[in-house]
Amino acid sequence: MTAADRPSDTRAFVAACGQALGAAHVLTDAHDTAPFLADWRRRYLGRACAVLLPADTREVAAVVRLAREYRVALVPQGGNTGLAGGATPDASGAQAVISLKRLNRIRDVDAHNNTITVEAGVVLAEIQARAQAEARLFALSLAAEGSCTIGGNLSTNAGGTGVLRYGNTRELCLGLEVVTPQGEIWDGLRALRKDNTGYDLRDLFIGAEGTLGIITAAVMKLHPAPVAKVTALAGLASPHAALDFLSMAQRHAGALLTGFELMSDFSLRLVGRHFPQMRYPFAHTHAQTVLLELSDSESEEHARALFERLMEEALEEGIVADAVVAENLSQSRAFWDLREHIPLAQAEEGLNIKQDISVPISSIGRFIEETDALIARAAPGARMVTFGHLGDGNLHYNVQSPEGVDPKRFLDEYQARINTLVYEQVHAHRGSISAEHGLGQLKVNEAMHYKSPVEVRLMQTIKAALDPDNLMNPGKVVPEARPSGLRPGTAPDHTEESAP
Amino acid sequence: MTAADRPSDTRAFVAACGQALGAAHVLTDAHDTAPFLADWRRRYLGRACAVLLPADTREVAAVVRLAREYRVALVPQGGNTGLAGGATPDASGAQAVISLKRLNRIRDVDAHNNTITVEAGVVLAEIQARAQAEARLFALSLAAEGSCTIGGNLSTNAGGTGVLRYGNTRELCLGLEVVTPQGEIWDGLRALRKDNTGYDLRDLFIGAEGTLGIITAAVMKLHPAPVAKVTALAGLASPHAALDFLSMAQRHAGALLTGFELMSDFSLRLVGRHFPQMRYPFAHTHAQTVLLELSDSESEEHARALFERLMEEALEEGIVADAVVAENLSQSRAFWDLREHIPLAQAEEGLNIKQDISVPISSIGRFIEETDALIARAAPGARMVTFGHLGDGNLHYNVQSPEGVDPKRFLDEYQARINTLVYEQVHAHRGSISAEHGLGQLKVNEAMHYKSPVEVRLMQTIKAALDPDNLMNPGKVVPEARPSGLRPGTAPDHTEESAP
Repeated sequence: MTAADRPSDTRAFVAACGQALGAAHVLTDAHDTAPFLADWRRRYLGRACAVLLPADTREVAAVVRLAREYRVALVPQGGNTGLAGGATPDASGAQAVISLKRLNRIRDVDAHNNTITVEAGVVLAEIQARAQAEARLFALSLAAEGSCTIGGNLSTNAGGTGVLRYGNTRELCLGLEVVTPQGEIWDGLRALRKDNTGYDLRDLFIGAEGTLGIITAAVMKLHPAPVAKVTALAGLASPHAALDFLSMAQRHAGALLTGFELMSDFSLRLVGRHFPQMRYPFAHTHAQTVLLELSDSESEEHARALFERLMEEALEEGIVADAVVAENLSQSRAFWDLREHIPLAQAEEGLNIKQDISVPISSIGRFIEETDALIARAAPGARMVTFGHLGDGNLHYNVQSPEGVDPKRFLDEYQARINTLVYEQVHAHRGSISAEHGLGQLKVNEAMHYKSPVEVRLMQTIKAALDPDNLMNPGKVVPEARPSGLRPGTAPDHTEESAP
Repeated sequence: MTAADRPSDTRAFVAACGQALGAAHVLTDAHDTAPFLADWRRRYLGRACAVLLPADTREVAAVVRLAREYRVALVPQGGNTGLAGGATPDASGAQAVISLKRLNRIRDVDAHNNTITVEAGVVLAEIQARAQAEARLFALSLAAEGSCTIGGNLSTNAGGTGVLRYGNTRELCLGLEVVTPQGEIWDGLRALRKDNTGYDLRDLFIGAEGTLGIITAAVMKLHPAPVAKVTALAGLASPHAALDFLSMAQRHAGALLTGFELMSDFSLRLVGRHFPQMRYPFAHTHAQTVLLELSDSESEEHARALFERLMEEALEEGIVADAVVAENLSQSRAFWDLREHIPLAQAEEGLNIKQDISVPISSIGRFIEETDALIARAAPGARMVTFGHLGDGNLHYNVQSPEGVDPKRFLDEYQARINTLVYEQVHAHRGSISAEHGLGQLKVNEAMHYKSPVEVRLMQTIKAALDPDNLMNPGKVVPEARPSGLRPGTAPDHTEESAP
């Protein structure tokens, strides 16, 4: 009898895991497992036959082999801060959560090579701190950095505020260690800038949300720590002006430009309403405000002088209406605080519809104009909270209920309609409906709806080839292709159907 | 009868291609096909039932469907400048070369988005020129840029001189259009900086040398064009000193540092011998010379001042023995000429053993010392021509016959031994035996020898899943896994054998 024919046996699996990991690291008590079974935003509540806490890569591999033997699906979990339910098990109680928390060692720092080798469960902020201690920068930075883990960052290809200059998590990774769905350990922990000796397995596992294997360790890139970071704010008339300003800033600053964030007037007014201690530095309001950041390897004075020249030209050309350069670190911090308080102000204002979309940067102006108009028509009075990483073409294009309307009722009535409207617009602009948060279980169907059948089949083919028993985080990222029991290679031939 | 059972029918295939492409675009005459059947270095000479020249993506897809119908293997080819025989067919005469030359349109330039959309057959230099016309930089640059094509660059994940700052071809690509082994067209031409809606198919096709499908077009990243490029030379005592100098230069210059090339004394002496008009700018020779390049978005003066400060500190700390900053563009050019004439001087000196290896940057000093000593013992008098992209950990660690010894005889006797010795050293330092040239047919066996069985099987599983009939550039990059006729999914279970 092959593994594929055996029925799932969760009870025997849990017992065998207890043997392999020690009883203390196999949680089954409801009180102990609860924190692992709901996602961070509490949108998803799952059940599990156990929560497993392996100590190291070998124990992860042992768990995967047992899962295969007893036909139990595994849901890998890091800091459990994901926004798409990718780390939450389904409601059946037949899946097991495998937490990577105990794989929390920094294995190596190589300052001359500008690399750090970390296990999947190391918290992002810890990597940043360790890099700093070596006069290096670990450039990944995002709101959850105090509790998210690098394994989760890799599995979702997390974005954040440093992407403009340093790229997504994908671009910061040189090598991986992965436990395959067969329970083998792939040691791809290369610390090389150049290696062309075969298929790029690394990037296949990055962003796969644990559906193709479990990332247990990684070699991440470090950068020389900048000597100074200086921020500035600029008030502008429109997203189009912000786009012209981005081009100008890139021409002036090149790779020194590490942040370029857009904040609509209403976004900042929300911050002002709920956090009155936050100060908007301009005398007049502007339709759009841009936050810029320079990371300089020379000096703060150099960065500030560069900003002055840029702002002068932008003011002269009428692209920018007003501008202020932070005079010190605490003012820089205050500017970032404005930006970071937008989601908090939204939460204070009440339930709202959140988007994480991207379009080509050149299309952002038109996208916002068109979509604003469509939403105004579809949901009169809806208040747009538009902000985000303009330099990456990535907007949090959120929608708040009309003033005085109960948010819950508004969402019940409009959320589905507005989502569809936004996704259709994103699709028309050849954008992405999940720019930096991944698909998890939240957006699989929507994402596949907008992908071509060719692309969906390529994904399904890879999933079926690497995880033929569909035990690695099933239901996440990619929809199942085939009736259960059918093996890869016997899928029907789709050539004719979509031949051009 | 399924396609897999049918015998290959090259005659019917060639006739059908004539129908599909027009007779003028199906070459079979020996005189016409000859340029496509030998690689650039003339190490490989193949045969082909035809050389096919489709006009566009739809014709490429039509050819792939015909290849499938008639069971004919396809060898995709771009500018035919590869160094590993990846684009040369085997000697059977049963394969067909599919040249992407006629897919040579620049489809779109989007300056605000910093992207350019190009077809696979566009010559690299043409993309650079078009970017420049838009005040942008296309950062891929390598010796063959006048004749290599972007499709080939992508399929081999080409490196070159800009990798330190801008990355390999992989890092310069945002989206792809690919004809799959089933003859379907995957439109993955996304122009987004952030997109997390599924598996990273793009990076799977990049570097796969046409074994998983045929890249027909791509969206490539542009950067703002720097205002000034300034180079400098520094004389140092050892690779270890060069490494300390690299850290210092990165600290001073951050992302402005776009080149850091190492040249050993003997490399430059060879240049002096065969190109006496080239001038070495230092009064005394140095064991190692480093060429640095800064790309500045402010001004030439700013770059030069930065260099002055760097060199002053490096001289003071005794890391650098002598230094000279180029005073103008033509002197900058002259410094690069020295570097670029090393391979030419090697050719003048006679046949030699070439390597394209990488190791972690921090290991370069030890790697050179140890390997030099081993080679001196194994092949007394052999002359090391060590140069390359130190900033990427990528060395062309070449070996010339001893003075006065016939190069041909030396190679016959020592090449295999020296290759093995170098590869073992690279492996011991966790490096790569093909850093920027790919595997093609030159290094498949060697590369697989040093990979773990887990990694080789992962590659084979992907190949078998995407190209079950093994018709896409068979024999390149990945060795065949299974007796022909066996379908994926029926491969034996390897779990136990290599379980940790």
